[in-house]
Amino acid sequence: MHHESDRTGPHLGPAEFERLGAEALRWITNYLDRAETLPVAAQVEPGDIRRSFPATPPETGTSLDDLFEVMDEKVVPGLTHWQSPNWFAYFPCNHSFPSILGEMLAAGLGTQGMIWATSPACTELESLMMDWALDAFGLPDRFRTGARDGDGSSDCIGGGVIQDTASSATFCALLAARERATDGVAGRDGVSACPPLVAYTSEHAHSSVEKACGMAGLGRANLRLVPSDPETLAMRPDELERLMDEDAAAGRIPFYVCTTCGTTSSGAIDDTAAISEITRKHGAWLHLDGAMFGVAAICPEFRWVLAGAEHCDSVCVNPHKWLFTNFDCDLFWVADRQALTRALGIMPEYLRNAPSESGKVIDYRDWQVPLGRRFRALKLWLVFRHYGLEGLRTALREHIAIAQEFADMIDADPDWIRCAPSPLSLICIRHRDGDERTQAVLEAINASGEALLSHTKFDDHYVIRVSIGQTRTRLEHVHKLFELLGMHGHG
Amino acid sequence: MHHESDRTGPHLGPAEFERLGAEALRWITNYLDRAETLPVAAQVEPGDIRRSFPATPPETGTSLDDLFEVMDEKVVPGLTHWQSPNWFAYFPCNHSFPSILGEMLAAGLGTQGMIWATSPACTELESLMMDWALDAFGLPDRFRTGARDGDGSSDCIGGGVIQDTASSATFCALLAARERATDGVAGRDGVSACPPLVAYTSEHAHSSVEKACGMAGLGRANLRLVPSDPETLAMRPDELERLMDEDAAAGRIPFYVCTTCGTTSSGAIDDTAAISEITRKHGAWLHLDGAMFGVAAICPEFRWVLAGAEHCDSVCVNPHKWLFTNFDCDLFWVADRQALTRALGIMPEYLRNAPSESGKVIDYRDWQVPLGRRFRALKLWLVFRHYGLEGLRTALREHIAIAQEFADMIDADPDWIRCAPSPLSLICIRHRDGDERTQAVLEAINASGEALLSHTKFDDHYVIRVSIGQTRTRLEHVHKLFELLGMHGHG
Repeated sequence: MHHESDRTGPHLGPAEFERLGAEALRWITNYLDRAETLPVAAQVEPGDIRRSFPATPPETGTSLDDLFEVMDEKVVPGLTHWQSPNWFAYFPCNHSFPSILGEMLAAGLGTQGMIWATSPACTELESLMMDWALDAFGLPDRFRTGARDGDGSSDCIGGGVIQDTASSATFCALLAARERATDGVAGRDGVSACPPLVAYTSEHAHSSVEKACGMAGLGRANLRLVPSDPETLAMRPDELERLMDEDAAAGRIPFYVCTTCGTTSSGAIDDTAAISEITRKHGAWLHLDGAMFGVAAICPEFRWVLAGAEHCDSVCVNPHKWLFTNFDCDLFWVADRQALTRALGIMPEYLRNAPSESGKVIDYRDWQVPLGRRFRALKLWLVFRHYGLEGLRTALREHIAIAQEFADMIDADPDWIRCAPSPLSLICIRHRDGDERTQAVLEAINASGEALLSHTKFDDHYVIRVSIGQTRTRLEHVHKLFELLGMHGHG
Repeated sequence: MHHESDRTGPHLGPAEFERLGAEALRWITNYLDRAETLPVAAQVEPGDIRRSFPATPPETGTSLDDLFEVMDEKVVPGLTHWQSPNWFAYFPCNHSFPSILGEMLAAGLGTQGMIWATSPACTELESLMMDWALDAFGLPDRFRTGARDGDGSSDCIGGGVIQDTASSATFCALLAARERATDGVAGRDGVSACPPLVAYTSEHAHSSVEKACGMAGLGRANLRLVPSDPETLAMRPDELERLMDEDAAAGRIPFYVCTTCGTTSSGAIDDTAAISEITRKHGAWLHLDGAMFGVAAICPEFRWVLAGAEHCDSVCVNPHKWLFTNFDCDLFWVADRQALTRALGIMPEYLRNAPSESGKVIDYRDWQVPLGRRFRALKLWLVFRHYGLEGLRTALREHIAIAQEFADMIDADPDWIRCAPSPLSLICIRHRDGDERTQAVLEAINASGEALLSHTKFDDHYVIRVSIGQTRTRLEHVHKLFELLGMHGHG
């Protein structure tokens, strides 16, 4: 496309792109500055945003000179502001300026790293970042991707890859487990040709485990939701053992166990080390889903959150949740890369190439569901490079300290009950007056736009989750939230 | 994270981000300008790039002031330059300045659109873009997402969603088909609880169909690769009918057929209309994979490429291949959204919310494999808005005209045989002296760095694929390629 005047009218050339891009940068910093003052949840009704745009695509192109005006008028009102310091819902999904720069560079390069040959830097920087992250989180060498001398050929049998999300990591791990348990028969001839397979996870684990069982053709009903301990809300190893033994005795194959480091509901941390002994007895694949809290292992004093990882077949953690890296960026490691590529690899003629056949390179397309790949390693590299491990530790420690202070405020308040252990940055609370009151407070705060909270249910109670970890969240924001809880929850 | 001086040292603040960002913009335009002069394929050995970076993550952060120096020294040599005008390999994966701006804005906003409530604009702009694209490509109303009056509640039963890739679209369509064929039993109780299911696609279709059958637990062996016509290289409807009838007679259920608009090998276009009659007879799901050439339907004279879409259960096309929109951006439509959400939807308590329960909004997490979602609609919106349909048509017509001129050059050259119909932008050629010669020419050109080609095999021949469609590819680049073919292929 000619980026100059041509028969279809003037199109954006490099100079104009640089000018608009610079305006975009200012618009972004301005947006992030004022996000704090905006209602956190979009105050729109279904259809409002859509209706504000033309119903059909333009025949003739237009200049983008009014882009930021349109963004302010039509898009921003429809945003729920994840980057607001008053964001306490779901999980942080925080980002940072270095990470945004990484996304810009990836977009500008427009490279696609489906195989090593289609951009060696894309693959090699990614495998290096997976090793950097492994060192950062203190994960064992069994997950290392490249040899220490960086020769790329690697005598490692494990390795890591960036996935879009932990849901995909869970699914890929499940597929690898399925193929290992059936010696490749499930993928080749179908699950019908295999003995019945059963998967296990905590009753509080993420819904993606159930979704993965459905997608993989194993059946959501063949996932056992293991009861949790009433105090810790973590999976009960004894219950897991009982269920696995029962299934095995009945001729079913316990093939996959997913433990969680930070359940979505309560942030519970399963005892992966204890569970690994049971899992090993049955030869099942053990996946540790550290999406929520795994990154805390970057601090030596929180390294215990990933305890037991050394016994796992796969692990994932999410820099796009709580490590200042733009969504999407899930880090997924396997101890046996061949188990993964056996489940996901296919080599059509049109992708054959000498480097792949040499065995000296990684083709990450065989480590994931899609074929194509963005250059996601750039943003993670810039985050590590700019902040360093010390900078990242300081930031996480600050979040955790704020969260602990908030937990203390709750404990000292007669109106509120803290209803789960809160060693890190997620505090679960409910009102003493009961579920209706808890829900009413959440709805009032969310409707006020002053903060955003999300909820869950456990122990038969409606529970507010206070997730602390936005890039710009400071103690003052948590104080404000506490005041809001008092305002709506007192008397 | 404090973006000012703090105890961990100075971190990138807004002003510095704007300054570095502006430098990134200049670096990007400069890179795109000089991409033409760089060897298209990276001239590196496995491990070279990795070795040029520190083996371990930095303890202490550093300024990003030398970022572009490091990019030039360490990253660019490891890139295979997809955006080079001398790129003729695989598929274009072209991008544009408006699209890059869209990626920047998405990165800066840092919003995550897993459900409507987590950013209504993310969902509604996406559903609107799916309808804009439907109008642009002349797809039927059965795939429309929102009511024409844009009320968002929609009396539509079909709808569209942006997927990362066509591989994922193929997989999601297959899962929806599996659930429809088994009335939800496969997802709930597993494929073992169902009668045997069989899928069908052309022998030249993309490998993702086979991968999808494996992942879904149906078995790759239960995909029939239907023979193609020796002239058109399109799937033979009579052979498909024979196979489906045979399977049905044997008690197997023909449940899914994937036709292709632009096979990866040769760009063949299956006769979806004819195939739909056979598919309907068996009640099978019909998915049209228009990843490669579907976007050509934006030109009225090429609308025929999607003929038969009106009979399909699902369709996809890829703006990230040939519509100037950054990877990833695959557009995926289904005629029955409930068939899709039945296969992929799960509602855990922590995601329950009033808008979702009202039925008036779309939660796109239930339309895809992962849970989280980037704001990908922004880039597509900016591409449509800036170029308009006319601008996009002009660009595609220019690519097609150049490709046709190249086809004429090949036809007039005694050394080369054009070995597949080439109505659009992919020209398949082989050397008269045989496969070894063809391969040697490809390898010589790729090694020269002057252009990049990829290959395939059909009719028992090694075939060079010349895919024309990069944003900056002009007739002169194709002339140069033709000269290279002569230089390495003559005498």
